[in-house]
Formats: sequence, structure tokens, C-alpha cells
Amino acid sequence: MRRITPEALTPEAFAAFGEVISVDAAREVRTINAGHTQRFHALAGLALTADGGRGIVSVFRSTPLPGPLVIRELERHPLSTQAFVPLSMRPYVVVVAPPGDFDATRIRAFRAQGQGVNFHAGTWHHFNLALGEVSDFLVIDREADDVNCDVATLAEADWIEIG
Amino acid sequence: MRRITPEALTPEAFAAFGEVISVDAAREVRTINAGHTQRFHALAGLALTADGGRGIVSVFRSTPLPGPLVIRELERHPLSTQAFVPLSMRPYVVVVAPPGDFDATRIRAFRAQGQGVNFHAGTWHHFNLALGEVSDFLVIDREADDVNCDVATLAEADWIEIG
Repeated sequence: MRRITPEALTPEAFAAFGEVISVDAAREVRTINAGHTQRFHALAGLALTADGGRGIVSVFRSTPLPGPLVIRELERHPLSTQAFVPLSMRPYVVVVAPPGDFDATRIRAFRAQGQGVNFHAGTWHHFNLALGEVSDFLVIDREADDVNCDVATLAEADWIEIG
Repeated sequence: MRRITPEALTPEAFAAFGEVISVDAAREVRTINAGHTQRFHALAGLALTADGGRGIVSVFRSTPLPGPLVIRELERHPLSTQAFVPLSMRPYVVVVAPPGDFDATRIRAFRAQGQGVNFHAGTWHHFNLALGEVSDFLVIDREADDVNCDVATLAEADWIEIG
């Protein structure tokens, strides 16, 4: 079992996997509403309606895994983006591999805090890994994702410990 | 100028205007990810792609209005839903009127805290009214909303003070 230390989550480091949702990642800031609002514009683009899909907003309440974080499988949604935005300032871990044929040697881990992520369609990712305490995340994805989910299971020799 | 005291934001009271994004408003809760996640499912439905539109995620940083909250105009987006989810626990005010021909006598105000809203397409609404301090909101709407925005201006006699 190899071990990965999470990297800092930056738009550049994460570009192959998706977008970082954070005011610090904004490429365009508009002043609107007679000066009362700054719009950090289009931090992420949604693609949720392929094959008649419908975009929905949900909340995921994530319980931290007990003990060390060990990655045994990843999943992907080939038809749609999926965004996670933390509703607290608690840190969490994002584990991903690039879209396309699954390659366990290309798994990366990022440590996020006060930042959301929007996975590109097809990005392999672990389910949401809250740290410390039960944490809520706003999720923007596609209705009926049970028909839009592939799973890649790692051989035990390829399991990855995050830490 | 008449005065409106904000009502509590509940899914029932807000149904004519949109959806409330809150775990308390969930009609379906799924346990997923081997028991590590509760999915408060489909709290809101997105309609962002009419006429070739693209859904985007932005952050709005809202500065409270100085002095009393006076409502002088509302706007609507006929082609798309628009969701606001607070990224803090600070309260804010939602001011709306039903879709269709604008009717100032039907304006309602809601006080929200730890809850988001998703306006139906065409719901008249005031721009985001943060209270107390500058506050960030996650916004899910449609690219190029400058071609998807009507404004209704209230005659001075119809202005509304919120409080």
C-alpha cells in the first residue's frame, strides 16, 4: 500500500480534474446591484442535462471515515459534472484520477478548506472525505445518477493511504 | 410607504416563489457511500439551459444596504431558475413577488438563516439583501443573464420598508 500526502488545492493543480469554487479562483469579478454585490463570476460550469438529465441541488452530510483514510475504490459520472461546496470551514480531502481509462498510479489527493470543487464529467473521484467532524456539503449534480455511475475497484496491492 | 415584517422562510410559505435549500426542507433522505453520507436529495431543481443557456456557479459577495431596507425595484429571470445559498450562518432577507405580471401589492419578505433559496423562473425578486456584515453566497444561475433580466420599478408611493 502506497501513501499519498494531500497537495494544496489550486485551480492549476486541479485543472485536469475539474474547477475550484472559491473567490480566490475567480478570473472575472463583476460589480453589480448598484455596487452592493461583487459577482465572482462563473467559477464553475455545469453540464447536467445530457440524455434528458435534470440538474438538482442536494446537501450531503458526510461522516469522517474512522481510522486512516484508505482508498479502495473510485467512481465517475460519465454524463455530468458534480460539484461539492462545503457549508463549513472544516477541511476535507478530494481524491481523484483523470477521466478516461482508470489508472491507479495517477490518483492524486488534495486538501481543501473553504473551497468547493466541480468534477469534470468522467473524472474519477472518491466519495466525499470529511475530516474531523460530520460536515455538510452543497452538491450540484444530476437526477438519476444511478444510471450515470461507474466504479473502479483497486486491487489490495494498489490501495492508497492518505496522510 | 408601507412596511413589511419578514416572515419565517418555510417551504410551504415560499412554494409560489421557489424552493428552500435546507436539510430541514428535505422530502427524501438517502443513505449512500457505505453509510458515510446522508444525501438530502433534490432540495431544488435547476432549469438553466433554455435557449442554449449554460448553468454556472458563482459567488456573490453582498454588502448590506445602509440604513433601513427600502424596496424600490425587483427583477426577474424569465428563462431560468436562480439559487442563492449562504456560505455563512448570518441572516439575510429575501423579497419576492409571484411570477407573471408584476403586482407590488403581492410583494412578500422572508427572513432566512442557514437556508438557501432557488427562485422559479420568472419569480420577481430583490437583489440579495445581506444583513449585518458583508456575506458570501453561492449562486447557481445561467450564463449571460443580461439577456434574461426584466426590472420592475415601484412608484415612490409603493416603496416598501422591510423591518
